[in-house]
Amino acid sequence: MDVLQRIEQALEAALTLGLAENGPPKLGRAVRHAVLTPGSRARPRLVLAVADACGDDAPAVADAAAASLELLHCASLVHDDMPVFDDADTRRGAPTVHRLFEQHGEQLALLTGDGLIVLAFENLAWHSRMHPQRLGPLTLILARAVGVGHGIVAGQAWECETDVDLTQYHREKTAALFSAATEAGAAAAGMDPGPWRTLGENLGLAYQVADDLRDVAGDAAELGKPVGQDAAHERPSAVGQLGVDGAVARLKDLLTEAVDSIPDCPGRDKLAAMAQAEMERLLPVALKGE
Amino acid sequence: MDVLQRIEQALEAALTLGLAENGPPKLGRAVRHAVLTPGSRARPRLVLAVADACGDDAPAVADAAAASLELLHCASLVHDDMPVFDDADTRRGAPTVHRLFEQHGEQLALLTGDGLIVLAFENLAWHSRMHPQRLGPLTLILARAVGVGHGIVAGQAWECETDVDLTQYHREKTAALFSAATEAGAAAAGMDPGPWRTLGENLGLAYQVADDLRDVAGDAAELGKPVGQDAAHERPSAVGQLGVDGAVARLKDLLTEAVDSIPDCPGRDKLAAMAQAEMERLLPVALKGE
Repeated sequence: MDVLQRIEQALEAALTLGLAENGPPKLGRAVRHAVLTPGSRARPRLVLAVADACGDDAPAVADAAAASLELLHCASLVHDDMPVFDDADTRRGAPTVHRLFEQHGEQLALLTGDGLIVLAFENLAWHSRMHPQRLGPLTLILARAVGVGHGIVAGQAWECETDVDLTQYHREKTAALFSAATEAGAAAAGMDPGPWRTLGENLGLAYQVADDLRDVAGDAAELGKPVGQDAAHERPSAVGQLGVDGAVARLKDLLTEAVDSIPDCPGRDKLAAMAQAEMERLLPVALKGE
Repeated sequence: MDVLQRIEQALEAALTLGLAENGPPKLGRAVRHAVLTPGSRARPRLVLAVADACGDDAPAVADAAAASLELLHCASLVHDDMPVFDDADTRRGAPTVHRLFEQHGEQLALLTGDGLIVLAFENLAWHSRMHPQRLGPLTLILARAVGVGHGIVAGQAWECETDVDLTQYHREKTAALFSAATEAGAAAAGMDPGPWRTLGENLGLAYQVADDLRDVAGDAAELGKPVGQDAAHERPSAVGQLGVDGAVARLKDLLTEAVDSIPDCPGRDKLAAMAQAEMERLLPVALKGE
């Protein structure tokens, strides 16, 4: 099966597990919209690519880890788009969750994000029941990637502070989910996640730099979301700190380091090619070939 | 050690696990405020009471389950108090999280709730690492109690619907965490959680009826939060449906059924007495002795 198909099936399985047939209808619609609106699935693809490179001896666990990581990502997007943060009208080329309803949109968006976080852990626990020894490490990897210590929630909370370290902010807000992706891919296949951390972290930092570049040099139709948000919200950004050329150079350095860090394994070349292609995809059209 | 002391220590341990020393300071303050402002701890007390009745052979797991359940409860309170829902200024006799800060209060409240949900699952995974077989069942019990199917999130989402079944609404919004408490107490001690479900569910439904009664017959100083919220927000309520006398009768029926359902075990009488005392505590002063 194609990797993207595998991811969509794993997401559908998670939704089937979590949503009740006689549950509140609007919440069900909001949750499905948040998860199933087509996205790049960059994080779950990374989970499966690393699991594959590690032998993928428990595909159900890898699928669950991939889907759960994407659920956590979707949760953060839903909350991040709310009026209290970015007040965004569109995401992935579709209305944001809080704009999907004439009434109660914000309530439903808040509940959708909460529910997706819960579902991520439920889904992981359910689908790893044949490999109970892997659940603990996987739960810790995912939780730390989103938590109040050094996860997405911490990263986002730096936006409420005046004294911010840009590297720590990006490491937590974006790179944390990518390092969790590579670690979870290895842990889902029963391997030590430690050696896989640098790959994910550097890809994540590169991804954030690419996102900052697209925010200044991309256009809304290309991205499926508004541009110019960093400046509008006075958010710390790699472009603001390094300029466009400096940010492009930084992105290339991060990618080289990421590829160099891939542990010796049969899937090494395939993974390196995937990382390279991913970055090409992310550079805004206006900057390609620089 | 006193049960309440045991719970506070388990909550402190969870916060130490989750919060980083160099994390964003305001978020750290918000998270600690949300968790450590003194509360009744009714749910974690129920977890430990059932674990005790079941032999409590792994106290670290029972402590973690108790603390994690309280973290999930605190998360729901923080989000529920936000302007998008109840817009409450006080909770547990202290400012609500979003009122704790001059700036960014709502952002921090949103992130605090998210972070507490994540921490609940991280805490459970970390402290059950010596009993990995118990982590899956416990994670599922907790997740279902708060999730989008029939958990708190679903219960809260009924407030966005026009056609609402009051029993299902209360079962999800309040009773779900109580049935999770009794189930988790049993599962933490390695016992089958199934027979313990009715006790928790009935106590939870009784708790919700008591809460509805206190919303009309209590006062804000007694409760540490505003009264009259159900009517103000046009929320379904047992008092609205049954009247005050009907609601008091329903509360007593639920309590009797709860006590009758306690599985045969050495701690049965102690548990029954605890359930009775809890309900006495919850009735508003104006209705005591009725």
